[in-house]
Amino acid sequence: MRFNYKVILNVLSLLILLNGAFMMTCIPFSWYFGGKDMNALLISGVSAMVIGYVVFVITRRNRSKELKKKDGYLIVTLGWLSMSLFGTLPYLLSGAIPSFTDAFFETVSGFTTTGATVLTDIEALDKGILFWRSLTQWIGGMGIIVLAVAILPLLGIGGMQLFVAEAPGISPDKLKPRITETAKRLWFIYVALTLTEMTLLWAGGMTFYDAINHALTTMATGGFSTKNASVAHFNSPFIQYVIIVFMFLAGTNFTVTYFALHGKMKTVFKNEEFRFYVLLTVLVTVLITIGIYQTQGTSIELSIREGLFQVVSIMTTTGYVSADYTQWPYEIVLLLFVLMFVGASAGSTAGGVKIVRHLILVKNSVLELKRQLHPSAILPVRFNGKAVHKDITFNILAFIMIYVSIFALGSILMAFLGLDFMTAISSVATCLGNIGPGLGDVGPVDHFGNIPMVGKWVLCMLMLLGRLELFTVLILFTPYFWRKI
Amino acid sequence: MRFNYKVILNVLSLLILLNGAFMMTCIPFSWYFGGKDMNALLISGVSAMVIGYVVFVITRRNRSKELKKKDGYLIVTLGWLSMSLFGTLPYLLSGAIPSFTDAFFETVSGFTTTGATVLTDIEALDKGILFWRSLTQWIGGMGIIVLAVAILPLLGIGGMQLFVAEAPGISPDKLKPRITETAKRLWFIYVALTLTEMTLLWAGGMTFYDAINHALTTMATGGFSTKNASVAHFNSPFIQYVIIVFMFLAGTNFTVTYFALHGKMKTVFKNEEFRFYVLLTVLVTVLITIGIYQTQGTSIELSIREGLFQVVSIMTTTGYVSADYTQWPYEIVLLLFVLMFVGASAGSTAGGVKIVRHLILVKNSVLELKRQLHPSAILPVRFNGKAVHKDITFNILAFIMIYVSIFALGSILMAFLGLDFMTAISSVATCLGNIGPGLGDVGPVDHFGNIPMVGKWVLCMLMLLGRLELFTVLILFTPYFWRKI
Repeated sequence: MRFNYKVILNVLSLLILLNGAFMMTCIPFSWYFGGKDMNALLISGVSAMVIGYVVFVITRRNRSKELKKKDGYLIVTLGWLSMSLFGTLPYLLSGAIPSFTDAFFETVSGFTTTGATVLTDIEALDKGILFWRSLTQWIGGMGIIVLAVAILPLLGIGGMQLFVAEAPGISPDKLKPRITETAKRLWFIYVALTLTEMTLLWAGGMTFYDAINHALTTMATGGFSTKNASVAHFNSPFIQYVIIVFMFLAGTNFTVTYFALHGKMKTVFKNEEFRFYVLLTVLVTVLITIGIYQTQGTSIELSIREGLFQVVSIMTTTGYVSADYTQWPYEIVLLLFVLMFVGASAGSTAGGVKIVRHLILVKNSVLELKRQLHPSAILPVRFNGKAVHKDITFNILAFIMIYVSIFALGSILMAFLGLDFMTAISSVATCLGNIGPGLGDVGPVDHFGNIPMVGKWVLCMLMLLGRLELFTVLILFTPYFWRKI
Repeated sequence: MRFNYKVILNVLSLLILLNGAFMMTCIPFSWYFGGKDMNALLISGVSAMVIGYVVFVITRRNRSKELKKKDGYLIVTLGWLSMSLFGTLPYLLSGAIPSFTDAFFETVSGFTTTGATVLTDIEALDKGILFWRSLTQWIGGMGIIVLAVAILPLLGIGGMQLFVAEAPGISPDKLKPRITETAKRLWFIYVALTLTEMTLLWAGGMTFYDAINHALTTMATGGFSTKNASVAHFNSPFIQYVIIVFMFLAGTNFTVTYFALHGKMKTVFKNEEFRFYVLLTVLVTVLITIGIYQTQGTSIELSIREGLFQVVSIMTTTGYVSADYTQWPYEIVLLLFVLMFVGASAGSTAGGVKIVRHLILVKNSVLELKRQLHPSAILPVRFNGKAVHKDITFNILAFIMIYVSIFALGSILMAFLGLDFMTAISSVATCLGNIGPGLGDVGPVDHFGNIPMVGKWVLCMLMLLGRLELFTVLILFTPYFWRKI
C-alpha cells in the first residue's frame, strides 16, 4: 500500500468528530436568541459527530501506527477540505445559505481564516449560525498553529524550519518529542488572548455575543464580523484600539508572545522578523495617516486610528473594515494592495507570504549583487544571527515566485470570468493572502456574492492554497506524488 | 587605483565619438526635408565627435590594458548614461524638446529601446531630428547585442551564461577569443534584417523615410514611430504583417536566427526558449483574437491581425500600436499587462524578464515540489537538455524577485507622485520592461509628457535598470562595489 489510508482516515474522522463537537457549542447561542436555527445546528453537529465517531472506530483497529511524509501532505489538505465540507451543513440545513457553492465558499473562507463573505446581509442571520461562522475561523486558527509548529517544518515547507527552530522548548536535536508540548503552550496563549480580548470588547460596550464573536475572529486573523459594516458599526475608538492591539498580537509569532509573557524581552527584540514587523507597521501607518489627514478632512487622532486599523487589518490578513478605504487617495489604495502581499509573521495565525520570507528575499537580493563580484565566495543569508542554509533560501525564493505566478494566473482567469481589472486582481490577492475584502466590486463595503460560480470555486482553491503554504496542496497535483516507491 | 579610470574614460569617449558620427548620418535627411534642423544636428555631431576624440587621445596614452570586472560594470552603466546625455543635444539645440528633463527622457527611451515618448505631436518634428530619434533606438539595439554576447555573460548576470553557451562559434572552453567574432556575426544579421524590412516596407507603400525609420525601430524592438498614430497610421495589412514578422524576429535569439539562416533548423527547434516563444505567441494571440472578435465586431482577419500585432508588439517589448487596445475588454487588457512581464528571448534586442528566465522559474518550481518529497536528492533544472548549475538558477530567481520588487516599489512611488492606479503600475511596467506605451494616462494613444518631472527621472532610471539587466546598475549602489580590495 502506498499510503496509510487507514491512519489518514483515522485522523480525518477525528477532525470531523471535533468539528461536530464545536457545532454543538453554537446551540446555547441559538437557544438564547430564539432557537430558529437550533434544529439545523443539532442535526449538523450530531451527523458530524456520529460519522466521525464511526469512521474513527473502524479505522482505529489494525492500523499501522507509522505516518509517512506523504501521508502528512494528504492529511493537511484533506483535513481542511473535509472540515469545510461538513462545515457547510449548518448553512445548508438552516437555509441561511441555500446554494452549496456559496455555503462551501463561506466555510472555506472561515476555516482558512480569510473572511471573504458571500452574504449580503450578515445581521439577518440567526445568531447560532452566525456564531458557527465566527467559530470556523477560530478553529482554523488553532489548525494553523499546529500546522506551523508541528507539521510544516517536518514537511520542509518554505522556510518554516527557520521559525520553528526558535520556538520555545525546541532544540534542533530533539524536535519531535517536544512538538506536542509546544503546540499546547501556543494554544494556551491563543485561548488566553481570545478571552482577554472578549472581556475588553465586552467592557468597551459590545454585547457579550458581539464581543465573543469578534474575539474569535480577531485572534484567528479571520475578520468575519457580526455586523454588515464590520468594526465601523460600533463607532467606538476604544473598541477599535482594542481590536488593533489584538490583530497585531494575532499577527505576531506566537513564540515571540510566549517569550514576552515570560519576561524575556531581550529574546523578543532580538527576533528580526518581529522588529521588522513593528517597523513596517509604523512606517506604512505614517505614510497612510498623512494621506488620510491631507485629503479626508479628519482629525489627527481619527486619521491615525483609521490608518493604523487598516494597515494592521490588512497586513495581519485579518480583513476587518473600519472605513471604506477605497474612497481614500489612489496611492494609499495601491499601498494597501501591495500590503496584501506582505502578510505578518510566520508562526502566527496570519496568512500571506509573511515577513520572514520577504526579509530573506531582500537580504538575498543584496547578497546576490555581492556574489556577482565575488563568484567563488560563499555568502549565506543570515537570519537572527545564524546562517540560513542555501536550500532554505532557495525554497523561499521558489515559494514567493510560485505565489506571484499563482496571483498572475488567477487574476487572468478571474478577468476572463468577466470581472473588471480591480476586482479580478484584488479578489485573487485577498483570497490567496487569506485577507478578506479587496477592491472594486469586492471592496470593503461589498461582498463576493456576485462573483460567478466558477470564480467562487477558483477563489476557494486559492484560499486553501494560500492557507496551506502552497506546496502542501500543489504537491498533490504532481504525478510523482502518486507514484509507487 | 581601484578602477582603471583611464580605460573606462577611453571606452566612453569612443562611444561618444561614435555617437557623434551617427548624428552626422541624420544630416542628409535634414537637408532633403528643408534643413531647418541642420545646424542643431551639425553642432551636436561635431561637439560629440570633438569631445570624444580629444578625451580618447588623452586617455589612450599610458593606459594599462587590463580591464577588471568592476570596470565592466562602470563602463556599461556610464556608457548608456553618457550616450544618453550627448544624445539630448539635437533635441535641445534645435528646440524640438526645450526641457532637459524631457530631452533626457526621450533619449534614454531611445537608447534603452523603450519607445516611451514625451512628445505630443511627433509629426511636427523636423525630419533630421526625427531620424535621430529612431536612430538612438537602433544604436541601442546594437549595444544590447554586444552586451548580451560579450559583456553580461562575463559579469555573470542573471542566467545570460545559459544563452551565450549556445551562441555560434562559442565553446565553453574558449569563450573569450571568439566573442568579437560572434558579436560581428550577430550585428551582420541585425543590419541585414533592418535593410530587408526597410525594403519590404518601402515596397508596401511607405515613403523611403518612413520605411527606414520603422525598420530601425522595429529591429531594436524600440517602437518609436514617425507618426502620431504609430503603425495604425498606415492602415495597411501588408505593412502590419511585415512589421509583425520583423518584430518577432527582433525578439528571437539572434543566434537562433543565425542557425536558421545556415539551414540548421533542427538546432533552431531544439532551442527550448524559441519553442516556448512560438507557443506563447500563438496561445495568447488565440485568446485575444477570440476576445476581439466577440466584442469589437471586426472581421476574423482583422481580429487576428490586431491581436497578433499587439501580442508580438508587447511581448517583444517593441511597443508599436496598431489599435487602441485599452478599448478592448478588460480581460484582454489584463492579459496584455501580464505580457509586459514576459519579454521575448534572451540574446535578442527585447527587454523585460525574458522567456528563458520564466522557463527556468517554472521548471524549478515544479522541481521544488519534488525536492520536498526527496530532500536529499539532487534535482537540477534542465534547459536545452543540460543541467543548469544551481548557482545560475538561484541567480535567475533573485533576478525575477528583484524585478518584481522594483515594479512594486516603483508603482507606489509613481502613485505618490499623483498618478492614478493604472497609470502608475503600467508606466512602471512598461518602462522597466522597455516596452513603450502603457495603460491609463500613458496608454497607446497618449504620451508621457504630463508625468511630473520627478516621475520622469524615476522612469528614466527604470528604463536603464531594465535594459541593463538590473544587476549591472544596482551593483553600483552597493558600498562593497566602491570598497578598496
